[in-house]
Amino acid sequence: MSRTSSALGVAVIGHSFMGKAHSQAWRNVNATFETPAVVQRVLVGRDAKTVDESARRYGWEESSTNWRETILRDDIHIVDICTPGASHAEIALFALAHGKHVLVEKPLANTVSEAAEMSEAAAKASTIGVKSMLGFNYRRVPALALARKLIAAGRLGDLRQLNIRYYQDWLVDENSPMSWRLRKQDAGSGALGDLGSHAVDQVRFLTGAEITSVSASTRTFVTHRPGASGQEEVSVDDAMWSTLELENGAVATVETSRMATGRKNAFRIEVYGSEGSLAFDLESLNHLQLCETNRPAGEQGFTSILVTEPEHPYLDGWWPTGHVLGWDDTFIHQMRDFLLAIKDGTEPSPSFAEGLEVQRVLEAMEHSAADRSTRISLAAEMSS
Amino acid sequence: MSRTSSALGVAVIGHSFMGKAHSQAWRNVNATFETPAVVQRVLVGRDAKTVDESARRYGWEESSTNWRETILRDDIHIVDICTPGASHAEIALFALAHGKHVLVEKPLANTVSEAAEMSEAAAKASTIGVKSMLGFNYRRVPALALARKLIAAGRLGDLRQLNIRYYQDWLVDENSPMSWRLRKQDAGSGALGDLGSHAVDQVRFLTGAEITSVSASTRTFVTHRPGASGQEEVSVDDAMWSTLELENGAVATVETSRMATGRKNAFRIEVYGSEGSLAFDLESLNHLQLCETNRPAGEQGFTSILVTEPEHPYLDGWWPTGHVLGWDDTFIHQMRDFLLAIKDGTEPSPSFAEGLEVQRVLEAMEHSAADRSTRISLAAEMSS
Amino acid sequence: MSRTSSALGVAVIGHSFMGKAHSQAWRNVNATFETPAVVQRVLVGRDAKTVDESARRYGWEESSTNWRETILRDDIHIVDICTPGASHAEIALFALAHGKHVLVEKPLANTVSEAAEMSEAAAKASTIGVKSMLGFNYRRVPALALARKLIAAGRLGDLRQLNIRYYQDWLVDENSPMSWRLRKQDAGSGALGDLGSHAVDQVRFLTGAEITSVSASTRTFVTHRPGASGQEEVSVDDAMWSTLELENGAVATVETSRMATGRKNAFRIEVYGSEGSLAFDLESLNHLQLCETNRPAGEQGFTSILVTEPEHPYLDGWWPTGHVLGWDDTFIHQMRDFLLAIKDGTEPSPSFAEGLEVQRVLEAMEHSAADRSTRISLAAEMSS
Amino acid sequence: MSRTSSALGVAVIGHSFMGKAHSQAWRNVNATFETPAVVQRVLVGRDAKTVDESARRYGWEESSTNWRETILRDDIHIVDICTPGASHAEIALFALAHGKHVLVEKPLANTVSEAAEMSEAAAKASTIGVKSMLGFNYRRVPALALARKLIAAGRLGDLRQLNIRYYQDWLVDENSPMSWRLRKQDAGSGALGDLGSHAVDQVRFLTGAEITSVSASTRTFVTHRPGASGQEEVSVDDAMWSTLELENGAVATVETSRMATGRKNAFRIEVYGSEGSLAFDLESLNHLQLCETNRPAGEQGFTSILVTEPEHPYLDGWWPTGHVLGWDDTFIHQMRDFLLAIKDGTEPSPSFAEGLEVQRVLEAMEHSAADRSTRISLAAEMSS
Repeated sequence: MSRTSSALGVAVIGHSFMGKAHSQAWRNVNATFETPAVVQRVLVGRDAKTVDESARRYGWEESSTNWRETILRDDIHIVDICTPGASHAEIALFALAHGKHVLVEKPLANTVSEAAEMSEAAAKASTIGVKSMLGFNYRRVPALALARKLIAAGRLGDLRQLNIRYYQDWLVDENSPMSWRLRKQDAGSGALGDLGSHAVDQVRFLTGAEITSVSASTRTFVTHRPGASGQEEVSVDDAMWSTLELENGAVATVETSRMATGRKNAFRIEVYGSEGSLAFDLESLNHLQLCETNRPAGEQGFTSILVTEPEHPYLDGWWPTGHVLGWDDTFIHQMRDFLLAIKDGTEPSPSFAEGLEVQRVLEAMEHSAADRSTRISLAAEMSS
Repeated sequence: MSRTSSALGVAVIGHSFMGKAHSQAWRNVNATFETPAVVQRVLVGRDAKTVDESARRYGWEESSTNWRETILRDDIHIVDICTPGASHAEIALFALAHGKHVLVEKPLANTVSEAAEMSEAAAKASTIGVKSMLGFNYRRVPALALARKLIAAGRLGDLRQLNIRYYQDWLVDENSPMSWRLRKQDAGSGALGDLGSHAVDQVRFLTGAEITSVSASTRTFVTHRPGASGQEEVSVDDAMWSTLELENGAVATVETSRMATGRKNAFRIEVYGSEGSLAFDLESLNHLQLCETNRPAGEQGFTSILVTEPEHPYLDGWWPTGHVLGWDDTFIHQMRDFLLAIKDGTEPSPSFAEGLEVQRVLEAMEHSAADRSTRISLAAEMSS
Repeated sequence: MSRTSSALGVAVIGHSFMGKAHSQAWRNVNATFETPAVVQRVLVGRDAKTVDESARRYGWEESSTNWRETILRDDIHIVDICTPGASHAEIALFALAHGKHVLVEKPLANTVSEAAEMSEAAAKASTIGVKSMLGFNYRRVPALALARKLIAAGRLGDLRQLNIRYYQDWLVDENSPMSWRLRKQDAGSGALGDLGSHAVDQVRFLTGAEITSVSASTRTFVTHRPGASGQEEVSVDDAMWSTLELENGAVATVETSRMATGRKNAFRIEVYGSEGSLAFDLESLNHLQLCETNRPAGEQGFTSILVTEPEHPYLDGWWPTGHVLGWDDTFIHQMRDFLLAIKDGTEPSPSFAEGLEVQRVLEAMEHSAADRSTRISLAAEMSS
Repeated sequence: MSRTSSALGVAVIGHSFMGKAHSQAWRNVNATFETPAVVQRVLVGRDAKTVDESARRYGWEESSTNWRETILRDDIHIVDICTPGASHAEIALFALAHGKHVLVEKPLANTVSEAAEMSEAAAKASTIGVKSMLGFNYRRVPALALARKLIAAGRLGDLRQLNIRYYQDWLVDENSPMSWRLRKQDAGSGALGDLGSHAVDQVRFLTGAEITSVSASTRTFVTHRPGASGQEEVSVDDAMWSTLELENGAVATVETSRMATGRKNAFRIEVYGSEGSLAFDLESLNHLQLCETNRPAGEQGFTSILVTEPEHPYLDGWWPTGHVLGWDDTFIHQMRDFLLAIKDGTEPSPSFAEGLEVQRVLEAMEHSAADRSTRISLAAEMSS
């Protein structure tokens, strides 16, 4: 139809949890925001039958089991990679090499070397107008986007302390089974990388400052779990605790756990500055708590802002005041920002280079944890 | 295309706030839940240009300015009415008369007599398999569906008290302009009907009991507002307070306001029974508070349940535990339930008859408020 | 000792719950605030042995079983009445007649006629410098005193709506035994008077406005309870709901219950004005929520103020910022205010006349509840 | 008087913040709990005039400027030390040497060596029935005492993670003046010791386990502050972050700050075990949040317990359900426990030996922070 002839064709590679979330975002982005038109062309997966079912269900025109062929199609302009981290580099490098815009779900890659290669390729592609973006969707939670805006405007004064705690509890039961996510060779790390990548990205996103050193500890509370053939060793961490120094003089703690009983998806953030502070919890993602020292002492306190006003980030596309958003809407915001960057020729954020920085911090956490929590300078690492 | 040949064709009449919310629900219901397939055939509005823009944007195949012609089309099986209340009866009666399934956004109608006529027509249509449903979307908030389930299972014991307070604050400013919503001839009533209809429906939904008497008060705090030609009289209520008796022996308060400073969309519900209690707030719609007396006295209290578990109502279609939903997702749930009722030949709920009951309660509130809050028996009204 | 020679001698009549709370307040008031010195002279009760034990325990010099003799003693300057409501009038009138300052625990009396007589006697005594005060201790919760201050300063603009809900749950169990509190002849009323008197006093205290009309409903959910000789009829209400009109144009709801499962002492107050709003819960009595419309729309919300700053009401006598107070400390504040009024020759507040007003409102609630919730004008009552 | 002849005579040394809080506790303990009778004999301070004013105000029979003479008096049985930490050792050792029971406000001492000496003396005195106790009053917050009880009963299963964060904000303003608390030679450390001692004690109290290793970081955000003669260097930390390993396999984070804008006295504790979890905040000290995995998945969550039931720790001395306590009441509980230990001949807790353990952890934190956060084994320290 004419309405789609000039539209950007999208292919999503991967159709499990993240593939479904990204599909929903592509399906809804044009209806929600003023952006370039997109068409859901192809959903790619390994098994022909299941990916075809997913494709029909999630609104895709076609399905495929061949990601290379799909990427090479003329009607595919955007490649959105939702596969496990181990395959990100290969697919992204291929897509960039063929001039396709690339969105990669976090983490950028499982290793720093792959991330570095991807970052380099993205920088090169950018010179000819090919855009790359990393999918840290929590940057697109309106409350956190508002937090960044307030911080950037100096509303908190000089930043001093951040506390970021990302707690889940799906591994509390010691009899829950072994899985690839609990094997180092497959997953790279445990709570450290899975949840920690989001947390480290938020440190950088909220403060706009680089992390200069890291001290970390990790722990595997349940060391063996039932596998296909008896008890199997868990080779990744269940929880991680770290203290980060920032180039702006602030100190941030980053803590992650998959065994924090009762915390379902509790990504909790506190930011303290000389003139104000903020608090946030992903389990109540429409709220932001703001405290400012410029109010009379007897009237200070945390103000609970329901982030659904038209002037709040991303809210112009949605409903009247007071009608709350959900977790998945952050992906729609992500697609919006990516499409606008493509349209406007600006650099989408977070870039692969930013993803590489996050990977380096995560790697330093692992090294510190393996060396009696001794603080590791990232400046030193950078020069290596 | 083959995939849509057997699908149910949908037309939505109306494309402002509710038309947009319903469009989104139709666009996403098949991707989220196992239901009969639907196709977004036609979006209907008064102005050809704007409705066509809306249709393109919200994913409709076509637009139209003629609701009668649209309803008569063979490829339209479901008519979803999102126009202002005054036109609900005419459109719904026409659609039912032509054998189309009808979904009507709340309120059912502006008057009890229209509601009664619609209810009768729906009952008649039902005998030949034509389904009707009223769109009280808050029945589909998972936390409230869970609340109903707990109550129906007897978990709260005998119900004694309910407190339902629906507060917004968009009319706080006395200089905000006059609009049709503030004129009795157009809107029927103010906060009483607009917010009160949701509240009264929840009383019935949560308890499963009929309301037998009503005492109510209303107030217009700002009696004149700036109109096109000078100050104009506000002829509806700004706020309403009422106490309802239920057939099961419980007492419910229903309070509504559009001038409750700081409350953006605070639909707050408390239910107290002999063995437990519940609390809910729409501004945090993923949470339900549950208290039970069968726990040791020293460990009782309200448990804050994050309603995102697979076993929670509607959650099987969504994301892993801890990933919260938004306000608009309730409409997807509504479409799911309507489609399943069509497929299974069951009666969708709430029926028009239920909508009529709500209208009668609202009317009794108006009468009581006009008669010094004197309690009005609804049993008496029913026989009239 | 010399340090007490010029001190005011206090006698407390009654030594159960309230007698203990008042004893604690007298024991601590001089240590906490700059006030005239007091000496705990006599604690009065009916049973010589138990009152003597209480007296020793609570720090009194002596005990007595004769309230008349005690009041007549030269070294008694203040008579503090903590007996059940039925005996308040007789004791207070006697004390006032003999020139003693009188503090009466709420309610002033069980009937309007007794309250009127007491109010008249207090007014007369006041002309010769004898002070009377009624013990609505919640006026001395710092957060509520702050609320009043903010409202009086116009910070909320024009008041429009108040919601006061005082919920407890100690009667939830239908097998809990019969007691004098559940017999009309002894207690006057149930939740209506016991909890409602505090609530009505707060309406008047916070707004500074009189109540002009009342519509109310009551309900006894458990009509019979086990007594000494089998099931006995409960002759007071378990819960009450009312809507009050105020002379300043505001509308207030007052709701009370002793069967609100899970609410232990939940005296919750919301006040809405044209420029701001407030919220409070006695179960978290050190916090006050404040929302103001003069902040940017995107930063509005309820600010949770921890009311422990030196500039907050009563806090100058206590601890550094952040060290919270308890329920019983409100009585210390009450004694402070009473002592300062005696010293300064000012009128303590609330006066008996204010207590009379509360009684009249409570009486009107009973009448309205008995007459199908029909609204009763208090102006009319006043002139009668 | 006869009633005090057999009572234990108390002397409090020090009459500022802590001296006032302890005075209040001694003044009220007998009225609140069944304990041995006490008499407030002497309040000791440096300045005769001000200590005499304090003594009169706080209910003491006498005042003195000579702590040695006071301790030697025959009518003094209990010596309660509320002076700055640097003088604790000298006074406590003197009192113990003369057979007086000793209560020492936290911290036990400013150095590990003094603490060790005191611990040794206390152990020796204990053999002849002289009791010593350290004043970590937060052990006597009913909610935390309940937390310990639940943990000790195995209700949380195996403990895995604790997070303890003690945040205040009184140093946020960089222009607030220099004081002795900010000089290392006077205060020992900053937030690390002042707030960290409470936090470390809670780790030990709640878990009943010893801390085996420590990694810590500290930071002084405002390095110079206005002193009497110009800008002066701040020689203690403003904030501290640490990760502790426990002998039971759990990991605890302890974080403290005096620059956490908006946190007035936010001592927040989270404990996660294999079968449950707990959360607490001192700013709402009457509440405890409890989550348990043995409830159905769809009904799990944190239950907010209002810790005011008769069966809750310390509540039998207080008011009916729902009447909340204040911060200062924890000192009354402390005196109760100390007096009962004296009466029953049991060992009061926390002992000086426990205080020594806390000091060693704090010292290890300082060492780790000075050595790039490298983890320090306390087992090694113990053997040194």
